[in-house]
Amino acid sequence: MAPRTGEHATAGIESLDPVDWSGLRALGHRMVDDMFDHLEHLRDGPVWQPMPDSLRQELQSPLPRKPTPADVVYDDFRRLVQPYATGNLHPRFMGWVHGGGNPVGMLAELLAGGLNANLGGRDHAPIEVERQVIRWAAEMLGFPADASGVLVTGTSVANLIGVLVARSASLGPSVRQIGVDGARLVAYTSAVAHGCLPRAMEMAGLGRAALRMIECDRNGRMRLDMLAQRVAQDRASGLRPFLVVGTAGTVDIGAVDDLAAIADLAVSERLWFHVDGAFGAIAALAPGLRPLLTGIERADSVAFDFHKWAQVPYDAGCIVVRDATQHLETFGAEATYLKREDRGLAGGGVWPCDLGPDLSRGFRALKVWMTLSVYGADRIGAIAQQTCDLAAALAQRVDREPALQRLAPVALNIVCFRFVASDGDLDRLNADLVADLQESGIAAPSTTMVNGVLGIRAAIVNHRTNHADLAIMVDAVLEAGRIRAAKQKKPPVIHRGQVYREASRLGDAGTRGPFPAPGAGTLAAVPP
Amino acid sequence: MAPRTGEHATAGIESLDPVDWSGLRALGHRMVDDMFDHLEHLRDGPVWQPMPDSLRQELQSPLPRKPTPADVVYDDFRRLVQPYATGNLHPRFMGWVHGGGNPVGMLAELLAGGLNANLGGRDHAPIEVERQVIRWAAEMLGFPADASGVLVTGTSVANLIGVLVARSASLGPSVRQIGVDGARLVAYTSAVAHGCLPRAMEMAGLGRAALRMIECDRNGRMRLDMLAQRVAQDRASGLRPFLVVGTAGTVDIGAVDDLAAIADLAVSERLWFHVDGAFGAIAALAPGLRPLLTGIERADSVAFDFHKWAQVPYDAGCIVVRDATQHLETFGAEATYLKREDRGLAGGGVWPCDLGPDLSRGFRALKVWMTLSVYGADRIGAIAQQTCDLAAALAQRVDREPALQRLAPVALNIVCFRFVASDGDLDRLNADLVADLQESGIAAPSTTMVNGVLGIRAAIVNHRTNHADLAIMVDAVLEAGRIRAAKQKKPPVIHRGQVYREASRLGDAGTRGPFPAPGAGTLAAVPP
Repeated sequence: MAPRTGEHATAGIESLDPVDWSGLRALGHRMVDDMFDHLEHLRDGPVWQPMPDSLRQELQSPLPRKPTPADVVYDDFRRLVQPYATGNLHPRFMGWVHGGGNPVGMLAELLAGGLNANLGGRDHAPIEVERQVIRWAAEMLGFPADASGVLVTGTSVANLIGVLVARSASLGPSVRQIGVDGARLVAYTSAVAHGCLPRAMEMAGLGRAALRMIECDRNGRMRLDMLAQRVAQDRASGLRPFLVVGTAGTVDIGAVDDLAAIADLAVSERLWFHVDGAFGAIAALAPGLRPLLTGIERADSVAFDFHKWAQVPYDAGCIVVRDATQHLETFGAEATYLKREDRGLAGGGVWPCDLGPDLSRGFRALKVWMTLSVYGADRIGAIAQQTCDLAAALAQRVDREPALQRLAPVALNIVCFRFVASDGDLDRLNADLVADLQESGIAAPSTTMVNGVLGIRAAIVNHRTNHADLAIMVDAVLEAGRIRAAKQKKPPVIHRGQVYREASRLGDAGTRGPFPAPGAGTLAAVPP
Repeated sequence: MAPRTGEHATAGIESLDPVDWSGLRALGHRMVDDMFDHLEHLRDGPVWQPMPDSLRQELQSPLPRKPTPADVVYDDFRRLVQPYATGNLHPRFMGWVHGGGNPVGMLAELLAGGLNANLGGRDHAPIEVERQVIRWAAEMLGFPADASGVLVTGTSVANLIGVLVARSASLGPSVRQIGVDGARLVAYTSAVAHGCLPRAMEMAGLGRAALRMIECDRNGRMRLDMLAQRVAQDRASGLRPFLVVGTAGTVDIGAVDDLAAIADLAVSERLWFHVDGAFGAIAALAPGLRPLLTGIERADSVAFDFHKWAQVPYDAGCIVVRDATQHLETFGAEATYLKREDRGLAGGGVWPCDLGPDLSRGFRALKVWMTLSVYGADRIGAIAQQTCDLAAALAQRVDREPALQRLAPVALNIVCFRFVASDGDLDRLNADLVADLQESGIAAPSTTMVNGVLGIRAAIVNHRTNHADLAIMVDAVLEAGRIRAAKQKKPPVIHRGQVYREASRLGDAGTRGPFPAPGAGTLAAVPP
């Protein structure tokens, strides 16, 4: 006999939902206000500040066994975490190639967190949203409408997918069964390609030595003559060339390979043509930049990030593959518990988990969909163009400064230069200058090696950055450089307040006083 | 000559931030209220409903070039996306092993989306939060405090990392340089292990044929005698056994391998011992379940998800590796532009990008940190225990129903059974029943194959599920089964409203009327 329905009813059952929702709801409203306040007044704070060791210690605790009120945990977040974040929201963050995020994307994350959808598979609207985003990506790149694709954390994983699809296309899907033993595959990319490409070769079992890093010209573009020569050599040695990776926007200087020429060579040499367009692919949305990418529409696959130049919050990478069948054959699986039905929740055709390594997948498509829908692709493209215009202006300023030397041409939005009005170890000096600036909170460029010397790299990615921000950054470099050069052993004395007030005069640094963080307001706190 | 600071000032500069923030801020508040309303009244709606084709079509549009007001895009989300999500928030979602999410985790996503931190590396508080979460994970598993680890999308990627660390530990880091050619590595796991393990072997270039799927006993646990025998055979054949993967909670029936015995064998055979604890590892937080995991604390690495049994919103997977050096040696890289400094923003020691395939990484640590901090680990463990208790009660109910047959022992929280009061193709019938239930919106179990027959799988993962939910699900199975059995060609006539009213009488189904979705309120809409 069956028990009567609900015999046990809810006896003893507890969920993680509150009995009274009002407190948590109120906290949610407070968080919205706080985050909007934070975004609205970004300029009033430092770009970045080091986390004090005392707070670092305070964050460390054993696994919490007992509950803590949500507002207390939120206060910890406000005190220990938020003030010491990466800094890439700030208009004077110019380190690496980090996007600035956007408030619509932030709100999309709230919605996605609430829906808690798993986009590994099954038949539901969030998957349709991701499919839509992939179609938009294909359209942006000039790919056919039936191209395949999937969202991932970032281009590192997207490039891994590219390598794996190329591997499968070359060896056939049987590689999944038998592995790469004896395959002797070799791939090609530029000497300044992203470090995740050798890593993808490692993970794929091919080894990084099988990735030929081809010499570049003085503009940081892969030399096609050297590429053709190396392919011929490898074939003569009995190896099996299978893949060439072009770069659209190198991380060091923003160079874009001659993608059309690579496409030609890929056809004639029967190589899979993958493009690492981590940030550069978004140039396709800017009419003034798009010609730089000519040839990308002929690639077999393209990897790129929405969280860099497209300003979608982290993380949101993407791969698009021209031939949907080859993509599916690389990853498609049918486990018993994932069995696809022709109807019901288990329907829906090709699932995202058939297209990459992720099976559990959050709804990162929503922030991409909402960002592109609200701002429109033209505006995202205009922002990309704007950062390039800013970089050109910065390069002009650097070229006019006797104390500075530019280290590379400016292809897109990255300017590499260094302070040279000093004797001694310029690499060390410039590394120190960059750390000085970062720790001052005034600006955060990063360093990189260009042609064997260490440079200051200013990557203008953030949509909030303006000309005054660049001026403040350069002024701070010059000031700190002169002080360091004059007195190597004494701390520099440039005051953050000084630069800050100058920015205020220009009317774009907000109306609050100098940075409030104690001890972080000057470059003087920095050890030499 | 340098231009005067700010010569160009802000001329022509536009950002994605609004000039007037009040509209977007108000929309944010509306979203908070809407999402809290949604969570508070989950029971009033269907578990899942198919997305009408008309709406699917409406979602499809060319890449939007021009902007659209944020509230209009949000209305589209409310109309096209939210009603047709996966359903795993709902207490009667029992399909696959999906967590139910939680409101604190939802709010954490808002904050993380606002901060927009990239947790690939550098020195900032979000990385400290992730390190803290990893220490908590190590503590939960009984690992040493200096164990290494990293958050990833999910266990599929975490298992890939496990395979790659094991590969590197076996062959040495030189595998990164030269690949797996000639290595002849072979690995072992149970015949009912997760499909992402063969996929990890594929991606790693070893091939899925090099993963021996070892026969299980009748409880779904890997047979250790067969394992030992197969290792010996492989060694005799000149192959190189390097890895054994134990499973803590199989997806089909929730079985847990004898991890202590596998640990012993791994030591004696010098194999890397990895545990796929996708959902089961969280049992370590429940005193009543923890003994099932005995031996997990001796593993070399453990992969698991916070978004399943720990109810953190998707996606939040984790891997913990006992030997931090071996973990680092598998992935650690030093590209020029990622150069670590001893101070400044580029400081901070080992970065998460040194520990897995992701370089761009969102702040998924925050939702884990806040969920564990607010609820406390004991309560998460109590929820896991509760779902097991519910599964035990469900098994009893199934055993008492003559029309139902249980297909597997209940090790944790998964009950597999099927409707048997019918002649004919029971596999087809039960697949239809599951789709009927899913499309009715009443409950969403899934199907799986157990010992060669198709079963109804009810995975009790959601913290909101209670006894009445199970009763409603079983009643609906019985009703739909009887109707289908009686009239194979005629649609069943059970009304969602009928079951719904029964639930309402029990006082745990909210106070709103029957499901509002037109045409989705009965099982009758389902084609046979």
